[in-house]
Amino acid sequence: MKQERLIQLLESMSLEEKINQLLQLYGAFYENDGALTGPLAEMGLTEEHLKGAGSMIGIMGANKVKAFQKKYMATQPHHIPALFMLDVINGFKTIFPIPLAQGCTWSPDLSKKCASIAAKEASVSGIHVTFSPMVDLVRDARWGRVMETTGEDTYLNSCFSKAMVEGYQGQHVSEKGKIASCVKHFAAYGAPTGGRDYNTVELSERTLRDDYLPGYQAGIDAGCELVMTAFNTVDRIPATGNKRLLRQILREDMGFDGVVISDWQSIKEMIGHGYARDKSEAAELAIKAGVDIDMVSNVYISQLKDLIACGKVDQHLIDEAVMRILQLKNKLGLFENPYKDADEEEEENVILCDKHRKLAREAASESFVLLKNDHVLPLKKEGQSIAFIGPYVDSREIFGAWSFLGEAKDCISLKDGILSKMMNNKLIFEKGCDVLKSEEIPKGFLTLPTETDDEESAQKNLNQAILAAEKSEMVVLALGEHRNQSGEATSRADIGIPEIQMNLFRKIHKVNNNIVVVLFNGRPLDLREITSKAKAVLEVWLPGTEGGHAIADVLFGDVNPSGKLSMSFPYSVGQVPVHYNEFSTGRPHVPGKDKDRFRSKYLDIPNKPLYPFGFGLSYTTFSYSGITLSKKAIDKKETLTASITVKNTGHVMGKEVVQLYIQDLFGSVVRPVRELKGFQKVALEPNESKTITFEIKEAMLRFHGADMIHQSEPGAFNIYIGGDSTTVNEATFELTDTTKSR
Amino acid sequence: MKQERLIQLLESMSLEEKINQLLQLYGAFYENDGALTGPLAEMGLTEEHLKGAGSMIGIMGANKVKAFQKKYMATQPHHIPALFMLDVINGFKTIFPIPLAQGCTWSPDLSKKCASIAAKEASVSGIHVTFSPMVDLVRDARWGRVMETTGEDTYLNSCFSKAMVEGYQGQHVSEKGKIASCVKHFAAYGAPTGGRDYNTVELSERTLRDDYLPGYQAGIDAGCELVMTAFNTVDRIPATGNKRLLRQILREDMGFDGVVISDWQSIKEMIGHGYARDKSEAAELAIKAGVDIDMVSNVYISQLKDLIACGKVDQHLIDEAVMRILQLKNKLGLFENPYKDADEEEEENVILCDKHRKLAREAASESFVLLKNDHVLPLKKEGQSIAFIGPYVDSREIFGAWSFLGEAKDCISLKDGILSKMMNNKLIFEKGCDVLKSEEIPKGFLTLPTETDDEESAQKNLNQAILAAEKSEMVVLALGEHRNQSGEATSRADIGIPEIQMNLFRKIHKVNNNIVVVLFNGRPLDLREITSKAKAVLEVWLPGTEGGHAIADVLFGDVNPSGKLSMSFPYSVGQVPVHYNEFSTGRPHVPGKDKDRFRSKYLDIPNKPLYPFGFGLSYTTFSYSGITLSKKAIDKKETLTASITVKNTGHVMGKEVVQLYIQDLFGSVVRPVRELKGFQKVALEPNESKTITFEIKEAMLRFHGADMIHQSEPGAFNIYIGGDSTTVNEATFELTDTTKSR
Repeated sequence: MKQERLIQLLESMSLEEKINQLLQLYGAFYENDGALTGPLAEMGLTEEHLKGAGSMIGIMGANKVKAFQKKYMATQPHHIPALFMLDVINGFKTIFPIPLAQGCTWSPDLSKKCASIAAKEASVSGIHVTFSPMVDLVRDARWGRVMETTGEDTYLNSCFSKAMVEGYQGQHVSEKGKIASCVKHFAAYGAPTGGRDYNTVELSERTLRDDYLPGYQAGIDAGCELVMTAFNTVDRIPATGNKRLLRQILREDMGFDGVVISDWQSIKEMIGHGYARDKSEAAELAIKAGVDIDMVSNVYISQLKDLIACGKVDQHLIDEAVMRILQLKNKLGLFENPYKDADEEEEENVILCDKHRKLAREAASESFVLLKNDHVLPLKKEGQSIAFIGPYVDSREIFGAWSFLGEAKDCISLKDGILSKMMNNKLIFEKGCDVLKSEEIPKGFLTLPTETDDEESAQKNLNQAILAAEKSEMVVLALGEHRNQSGEATSRADIGIPEIQMNLFRKIHKVNNNIVVVLFNGRPLDLREITSKAKAVLEVWLPGTEGGHAIADVLFGDVNPSGKLSMSFPYSVGQVPVHYNEFSTGRPHVPGKDKDRFRSKYLDIPNKPLYPFGFGLSYTTFSYSGITLSKKAIDKKETLTASITVKNTGHVMGKEVVQLYIQDLFGSVVRPVRELKGFQKVALEPNESKTITFEIKEAMLRFHGADMIHQSEPGAFNIYIGGDSTTVNEATFELTDTTKSR
Repeated sequence: MKQERLIQLLESMSLEEKINQLLQLYGAFYENDGALTGPLAEMGLTEEHLKGAGSMIGIMGANKVKAFQKKYMATQPHHIPALFMLDVINGFKTIFPIPLAQGCTWSPDLSKKCASIAAKEASVSGIHVTFSPMVDLVRDARWGRVMETTGEDTYLNSCFSKAMVEGYQGQHVSEKGKIASCVKHFAAYGAPTGGRDYNTVELSERTLRDDYLPGYQAGIDAGCELVMTAFNTVDRIPATGNKRLLRQILREDMGFDGVVISDWQSIKEMIGHGYARDKSEAAELAIKAGVDIDMVSNVYISQLKDLIACGKVDQHLIDEAVMRILQLKNKLGLFENPYKDADEEEEENVILCDKHRKLAREAASESFVLLKNDHVLPLKKEGQSIAFIGPYVDSREIFGAWSFLGEAKDCISLKDGILSKMMNNKLIFEKGCDVLKSEEIPKGFLTLPTETDDEESAQKNLNQAILAAEKSEMVVLALGEHRNQSGEATSRADIGIPEIQMNLFRKIHKVNNNIVVVLFNGRPLDLREITSKAKAVLEVWLPGTEGGHAIADVLFGDVNPSGKLSMSFPYSVGQVPVHYNEFSTGRPHVPGKDKDRFRSKYLDIPNKPLYPFGFGLSYTTFSYSGITLSKKAIDKKETLTASITVKNTGHVMGKEVVQLYIQDLFGSVVRPVRELKGFQKVALEPNESKTITFEIKEAMLRFHGADMIHQSEPGAFNIYIGGDSTTVNEATFELTDTTKSR
């Protein structure tokens, strides 16, 4: 449909019909033949609202969506189709590793493929929009939603933001198998005080713009069709009613012209914030701030008409919002084909198909991070007796809190994966203990039956595990967080492995210290005890559908691990927030001089995290040459190349993520000690060398200076290139000829 | 001297003489007959610099100062006297409780008296300026300098800021026994990221102005003669070179017209920050930002002359700084009497005199906070067998890290205090263990000999302690942090009682659970285990010279404890930063509904601290009536009174701190859930009632709204009045007739 037709359509719509477009309702509301019971009645929603709502969250399945759409459009005055949206995060039915794990692949292309396949499965099931990617920068492991981000780095997040949007949307959202992408949560949702979900965010304007906004910007530049507002405040104003944030920063400064959608009931929640006195004020604040869609609250639907009638809200605000929604529907081609790609047959063909599973297996193994290895991994395929012990040995609940449609039955457990390998070992599999004690298990989104051992079987399981460990040469301990311990509203003040599992770990360690720990978790954990006692630690996160195969691939050396941490593992919770790109201080701590007084440090722990950003081991080793620069100085128009030769100095093929960091030595504001500015993943056969070249341009050196203008400043810069964020492989160049100084 | 004479003086000074005025050197540099060895030579300081420096830090003693001043002035071209400055924090020789403890008295008047006495002792010893009060707002118990503040609340800090400045300065600094007060550290030094001293401070402009600046403002309004800059960055610019902060905010907005002094070498440290390229740039940035005195670095002295010569710095900036320093010297009357109050005889008379000790005893007991009491306190004076066990039983190292001149020999230990009471009990005193293991003891400012037990005596001490506990009815365990575990550069990631003492605690608890814990520490600690097992917990902080007497007074009921926490005790370190006046969220946690999903909360700990701000028990109990308001609404010119009747419902006299909190229910920005707006400390005999009245005016309701203007907004407000920050005793009023709305 052409824009002029859309304008005509808009003009012909009644005010009620327009406001309906701004309402998004929950799919479950339409169950039970639309009986208006419970929450619906509480929310003051009528059957008319159900009939009118312009979009739905959580209705899927080709059959269901098509039937719904058909019936729905028939009752619409202008037969405008509905939009079907869903949180398709790390996969639809084929579940990929959680986003934090995907960050550890340092392979945005791979995430683009995952997003593309998620889009395909979702689109054939009738979905038009996914609420992904989440690109919130995170620095506090207490926050449960770190699992849903790609980590602590602005640049790395930006790369993934772009890749995922491209993966979902393709060249154009109208394409077959593509869905619209919604970048979230605007803005700075990842920085709640104390790591407590939904809590106040405290940031300077400079930090917001320099560190937090680029991830969203990358998604916008990649063409995301929607942006979701955040639950939190930005400068003490709820994001959902923050006119400066949404109109000035998002639309004007960042150039976003798509649909802005609230988060779940976040318009209404401005009342809880003490920012809106009532629903009328909440509606007024949100529409004026530029929120187009009200996600599952009745605020817009119940208030906007009156607000227009009394003149508090100008009708053009409604028209503007409706037009954006109509444009999105039009872009998706829904006016021509309201069912888009919904197709029962295709559902059968593509969902969980071999190709998708293969990618899930590849993405999982690429995301694993080998944290420690004292010559025990890879495991041998014959002649070893190995006891696989722990609650994650035979668990299929390995797909993360945001995989609504993931089903345990479709997942490959660690045990499944091991048993699928041809080998000649003596293997024992023992549960050892539950993931958590029954009373400690947090409620999930959906109430999953969680069976836990009674006292007798708990004791029996523990004893069998100890026995198995005693009689095996090697123990693989599969431990971690409960799936419901990460995700939304799952902030933890203690970021350890659950005590019931630490008890198992200690008991096993007493009888056999040949331990490999395989970790399933959704956030960086305090691993001090684990890593000091285990011989090897493999971080596998929540790896998704093909997790067990991927873990078996890596444990037995069919795949050489190459993941690098996308988020620092704090030394202990007392160190948070911790991130590699901290700012220079006037009293920097000198590593190794821990007893130096009057330095910025802790008395009782190091400043450095236990495992830093960018860190990850391999079954081979790599050596780095020094850095060769093409020039010693550049001006604004020139490009410098920094080259390095990486060599595989071990005995097996391996991949290395070569990382480029830059430090701006002096600035009109204090600068980070270093910042990631580039990376390349390179595969090397034993003894093979490759020369890796990075281009460095002035545009990479910009930041918000003292005057808040985003530009570079002349002067000296350090370059670091190496295998993690602590590399000391260094070179220096100069930026000349920029016009601006202090 | 009149201002016009000062102007003439300034005009007659050479540039070198002027720049000398801006230099402050360390007293120790003048030892060894000025031999320019070690640090002095490294700093590039010459004998000329030593001779010329306009002020000194750390030279004291009437005799010494007078001799120094005499010799000094003789060599000065214009015979301008030197200024003698010192960190007189919680006392000079008579040591009062650490500032965090003083905050717990909720008695600014008492702190005013302490400051007054500190000033007296300092002034007779030749000191002219103290670097106190520190009014930095703190919310993170990991930071070691929380001991030096009065706590987490803007209003309470402001009251103490005013009182202490008044105490040091009196009506005029020229008065006998008065010294000039330097408010520090400007600004926001108390908010380092991760609680790590000197680390980056991340704050919005709004939070800086609303929460952090009022404490400094109160000191400025009370007439403090100096303000010290902070080590940290504010908006990524080091405070010491932050022109906007020092010229716009401090001088223009806040109206400060006294001397601005750097912190120790903080001008030079701008190089470490990567903000200044070299000393020349550091000097230029600092003088342009408005820093008058360079504390113990050679930056000004080595750079300013050249900077003026080459035109980078205008001479008027030097003149302006020198004039402020001359004015300060003049205000102190030094041109008329360069020795001011320095007087050997008076030193003998006043230092540690009975009057001063009496005040120290009173201040200490008023600062103690009774955290728990299961009917075991007060102890009986006869017929009880009591074992006093722990490293703080016979320790005199109880005066805090910032008491340079405090001496253990002058302190009353807990044992001294107990033994001074007439009683008829069977008492045993046992050390039990050291405060810390030898290798864990942090270096202090001064290297104090710290003796620790060898293995054999450690075992013997532990055994004797267990034996003592076994044969006594009651155990008083005196535990805590090492004196060097709080103060500058003492950030702790683990905020527990040292493990060696927890081991003692657990061993004692096994044989006798009738335990009273007396806590000596400089920060809120994680007390979960202590408070769950001990029958009573008395927080005595680092109580100063008369600590032992004061503790004995309280333990045996001669003084009823009345302290209330000035800083929340976090549930665990995983909860920091935590403060009572957090902001409303859109998904507030409902206490008691811990299993509610999608609320702002932790999975594993409560949102509330273990002990909240304002909390403290008494040996009696108090009941509160409801709140009576004189009006239901006020406009900008009206005053409302809120009254409450408090009754002592127990059997002994007691003091209660009646606290007034106000919540602004809706604002153009999100508002705190409540804020302290008034308090009154009231003494009540058993059964006595008093009616307490608070005045509420529009001015108390102002904040920086969406437009950053500091003003109130009309609407509804909740009032809470009670004995701590969690009181639910509530009333509501309306503010009408203010001109501004959203």
